[in-house]
Amino acid sequence: MQQEIQAFLLVPKDSDFTIKNIPFGVASKADGLPFPATIIGDSVINLAKLEELGYFNGPLFSTLGSKVFDNGNLNKFVSLSRPYWKEVRSQIQSLFSTGSQLENNKEVLAQVITPVQDTKNHLPITIGEYTDFYSSKNHAFNMGSIIRGPDNAMQPNWYHLPVGYHGRRSSIVVDGTDIRRPWGQVKAPTAEKPSFTKCKRLDYELEIGAVIGGAPNNLGEPIRVNQAEDRVFGFVILNDWSARDVQVWEYVPLGPFGAKNFASTISPWIVTIEALEPFRIQLPEQDPEPFVYLKEKNHTSFDINLEVLIGTEKTPELEHFTTSNFKYMYWSVNQQIAHHSVTGCNIQPGDLFGSGTISGTTKDGRGCLMEYTWNGKEPLVLKSGEQRLFLEDGDVLEMRGFAGEGENRVGFGRCKGKILPALDENYFQQ
Amino acid sequence: MQQEIQAFLLVPKDSDFTIKNIPFGVASKADGLPFPATIIGDSVINLAKLEELGYFNGPLFSTLGSKVFDNGNLNKFVSLSRPYWKEVRSQIQSLFSTGSQLENNKEVLAQVITPVQDTKNHLPITIGEYTDFYSSKNHAFNMGSIIRGPDNAMQPNWYHLPVGYHGRRSSIVVDGTDIRRPWGQVKAPTAEKPSFTKCKRLDYELEIGAVIGGAPNNLGEPIRVNQAEDRVFGFVILNDWSARDVQVWEYVPLGPFGAKNFASTISPWIVTIEALEPFRIQLPEQDPEPFVYLKEKNHTSFDINLEVLIGTEKTPELEHFTTSNFKYMYWSVNQQIAHHSVTGCNIQPGDLFGSGTISGTTKDGRGCLMEYTWNGKEPLVLKSGEQRLFLEDGDVLEMRGFAGEGENRVGFGRCKGKILPALDENYFQQ
Ligand SMILES: [Ca+2]
Ligand SMILES: [Ca+2]
Ligand SMILES: [Mg+2]
Ligand SMILES: [Mg+2]
Ligand code: NI
Repeated sequence: MQQEIQAFLLVPKDSDFTIKNIPFGVASKADGLPFPATIIGDSVINLAKLEELGYFNGPLFSTLGSKVFDNGNLNKFVSLSRPYWKEVRSQIQSLFSTGSQLENNKEVLAQVITPVQDTKNHLPITIGEYTDFYSSKNHAFNMGSIIRGPDNAMQPNWYHLPVGYHGRRSSIVVDGTDIRRPWGQVKAPTAEKPSFTKCKRLDYELEIGAVIGGAPNNLGEPIRVNQAEDRVFGFVILNDWSARDVQVWEYVPLGPFGAKNFASTISPWIVTIEALEPFRIQLPEQDPEPFVYLKEKNHTSFDINLEVLIGTEKTPELEHFTTSNFKYMYWSVNQQIAHHSVTGCNIQPGDLFGSGTISGTTKDGRGCLMEYTWNGKEPLVLKSGEQRLFLEDGDVLEMRGFAGEGENRVGFGRCKGKILPALDENYFQQ
Repeated sequence: MQQEIQAFLLVPKDSDFTIKNIPFGVASKADGLPFPATIIGDSVINLAKLEELGYFNGPLFSTLGSKVFDNGNLNKFVSLSRPYWKEVRSQIQSLFSTGSQLENNKEVLAQVITPVQDTKNHLPITIGEYTDFYSSKNHAFNMGSIIRGPDNAMQPNWYHLPVGYHGRRSSIVVDGTDIRRPWGQVKAPTAEKPSFTKCKRLDYELEIGAVIGGAPNNLGEPIRVNQAEDRVFGFVILNDWSARDVQVWEYVPLGPFGAKNFASTISPWIVTIEALEPFRIQLPEQDPEPFVYLKEKNHTSFDINLEVLIGTEKTPELEHFTTSNFKYMYWSVNQQIAHHSVTGCNIQPGDLFGSGTISGTTKDGRGCLMEYTWNGKEPLVLKSGEQRLFLEDGDVLEMRGFAGEGENRVGFGRCKGKILPALDENYFQQ
């Protein structure tokens, strides 16, 4: 239905940011204030400036009494609704297509465009609350097999509801932020007593984060599953860093806590449902049939390739060792939203929902090291000969995600973090 | 050390709000905008107006470049630090003591004072994130005994760390808000399959909420336990409403979710550490000795009487049936803060930390119905002859808290909610 469009801005081959994408983020120039932005190729486009200059003049935006992009984050924009999101997206695509009024307007282009290498990314939204699910069957089966053996791998509730827990939003950081190895309490199964130590089983988790938008539901009024997608603004890559040794000791009976709340990293650009629509895929029928509040007319996900790469202090060049895909979901984002609100919880624009670790069906599709190394038993062997059971100081872990190829590629950019050594033990003596 | 002070405002006998208290909240007149406030007796005092009129002119406040109380909430104030909090508190006490410059200034008094019956309370702060702990030994022992029997009541980690989980802040409401009975998935131990139903085991939990203030710690830099109290602005009463039948099915392995996130109620006035100082009490020595990061020089809580009252549709008059106390804590608030941040989590001003249900040593000290009725086996029998295993539609549940008596009483006001019937099942068919 949409006309083929061509950006007049240079889009390098294999760029994540074709004109078919138009993701939303927040950027700044060196020492400048953060501004809402999109990116085409290597050009970061200042949306606050475009709005100020009157370019968002569609039928819906024209009715708004005040600015949307003036606040240094995307929260106001995300709080609107899909028709508004679509209008702005279309206008951006038109403005930067060959033949548009802007193409030869050097003065305006100079005001709104900054080369990506002169910018820095920030969290795209002030996150309201963060919830993490556990919705990939391959991952749940592998983790359950490691802990309880394959015959008891799946907990009784897993096929009936999208299991999830409330996480911590204050420690969510953007791509490129260093991650300090945590201290915590641990107790090995064979140990008589717990000890207080630097984390020895530091892990990542490969996830997709859904950025919630739209008007909040009232407290006490659950979101119907077939209307839930109205509340999905778009997606980011999410690395849910995990301290496995801390987690196994602390999580009974109230769930993960310090093992997760020390940091989570997201990719900087929110890729919208609109951009991902061509990559929507049907998910397999669910058995048992979900309860009415989880029963979707259209049970779908998106065909998004996910990759994990690692670099070490000795061998900094990143090596790709894991390939997964957002299609390996059992519970959809819409089902997660319906379940999150079923008891009455009011879901807010700006909330972030993690998919849970997404694992494929093969060993190189396992979405975390605990799974990949089968709880520290089968090392990941890198080309350099270095081995990893869990992350070591100086390691760089990078996640990438993309759908489609060439001119139709819609990508997420990167989600990267480097492990810093833990604090000295004297820190706690003071 | 402090001089005896006497308010010139009328303070009814047994008022929670003597001049020794000076709690902080947010109020509005009918149809007016919310303003930061304190209360003495039955007089609500507008702090935004006092600030505007230049009354907060102490050495610290004078150095601030901008207003603190101008935002309709207490977040800016709470983000300052104890010396600022003390300065404002002292100034308010002086201003409203007999003999102050204000005593006969009818014009100013008319501007800043509203009778409590002409006001309405709002959430005192925009809550950042909410964490709920599980730190009362009596409660943990009773719950464990119900589930696993007295010999296995305590989980292995319980005596080593303050177990907690991240909760949901969007559904935290202020005293007086009606609570809708949730729908959810449940599975009785004897049932073969789960079902989707109106909650049949609706419960409350009697807790104290610590309101976190002060400057945030950097991500990756834990808060030292002996400095943690700098981060406690004050306390509220917290009712952590709980859907027990939903909880028992959903909580494996990631903890409570929909069973808790449908609503939590707090009392409207934050009572400060300063007001509670005369009621500080030593907690018993901990065995085993806590790890270094949890080892306090001074392991304390506060002697705060806690009460639970119930009214029913048939017998609306509130009946007091439970008495507990904040002294029944095993882990202190400071230990909760140290543990929450030990892996590196950045704790923000405006966060709320729930104590966990606080139970005394006797049956009428049990802080929730699941405990009181021993999981629905021993009914609570009211004076009217009505019985309760769990909460029924139309029930009103009220919590109260106070320390001291007479002119020295420091109270929390009330934390009250009424149970509305669940939604009709057709709601989910649409
Ligand atoms: Ca996760
Ligand atoms: Ca609780
Ligand atoms: Mg995390
Ligand atoms: Mg609750
Ligand atoms: Ni009483």
